[in-house]
Amino acid sequence: MVKPSDTRTRIQAVARELFLEQGVQNTSLKQISDRLGITKPALYYHFDSRDDLVRSIIQPLMDDLEAFVAGREPGDVRRLLEDYFDLIWRHREVIVAVLHTPAVLVELNLMDRMWEWRKRLTTLLLGPTPTTVAQIHATVALGGMSDCVVEHAILPFEEVKAAAVEAALTVLAI
Amino acid sequence: MVKPSDTRTRIQAVARELFLEQGVQNTSLKQISDRLGITKPALYYHFDSRDDLVRSIIQPLMDDLEAFVAGREPGDVRRLLEDYFDLIWRHREVIVAVLHTPAVLVELNLMDRMWEWRKRLTTLLLGPTPTTVAQIHATVALGGMSDCVVEHAILPFEEVKAAAVEAALTVLAI
Repeated sequence: MVKPSDTRTRIQAVARELFLEQGVQNTSLKQISDRLGITKPALYYHFDSRDDLVRSIIQPLMDDLEAFVAGREPGDVRRLLEDYFDLIWRHREVIVAVLHTPAVLVELNLMDRMWEWRKRLTTLLLGPTPTTVAQIHATVALGGMSDCVVEHAILPFEEVKAAAVEAALTVLAI
Repeated sequence: MVKPSDTRTRIQAVARELFLEQGVQNTSLKQISDRLGITKPALYYHFDSRDDLVRSIIQPLMDDLEAFVAGREPGDVRRLLEDYFDLIWRHREVIVAVLHTPAVLVELNLMDRMWEWRKRLTTLLLGPTPTTVAQIHATVALGGMSDCVVEHAILPFEEVKAAAVEAALTVLAI
């Protein structure tokens, strides 16, 4: 017998698949239940709506980002950038899905929270009183890395990571 | 007597102000008409809804981006980056507003169009057959510059432009 928690995880996995294949807006709960071979009521037992499902998929990304900025000490810049890249790459399917699910973006206030995380990352990279120019360079480095996991999500991980981290480090060293 | 086209322009100007001050989601058509000193029906004469108004504000940005990528020849990379920065800086209030108006993002299919413009810009910068590493560096350069006009929208134009273009050029030269 399948445990309810397994069903929940399987729903999320299939949802991520379909979101990436055809976009969140074009994916219905019915398509998800069809692909899983479960009934729509069985799906509704776990998630009230598509937004509810998307939210549950996003939560681990938010938790990871929060833990990352809260748990790091300033120090090795390369290491920080590499670990940050690993984190956003791991969640890249979710990030792509989020960008295409405006209702959730607004509801979770994700844009503002993203800028807040960025600000704390910048402080880790540059210390508490960076020059304006250094802040602008950090925006290019971090913003550029983020875009890489969306724009190059289907390229090999190691290749994207190496080139993105190299670019970010170069900008921060100007 | 105020010409209708003037009223339309004034509505858009006040809307941009309020969107920046307090976000699109928190701005009602009533607040806009109140600040302008016109009645709500007078506003509805020009715009059916807030989304309609936001759309009208975004259209010039989309037209400018389209004209930019369509009208440029490959060549002077610094000049291209500087002119691109000028364009996105000029529209930065609109870009911030767009990021906070998901309904419009989806309706105008803006995310996908944005990636398409980026792709064409990358071709202008790198030619038709860039290496993967060069493409990743271009993503950092262009994505980073875009984030600068959002994150540093209230800093002095010349300062942000100089630092952002310098960072982008450095990445592209790796």
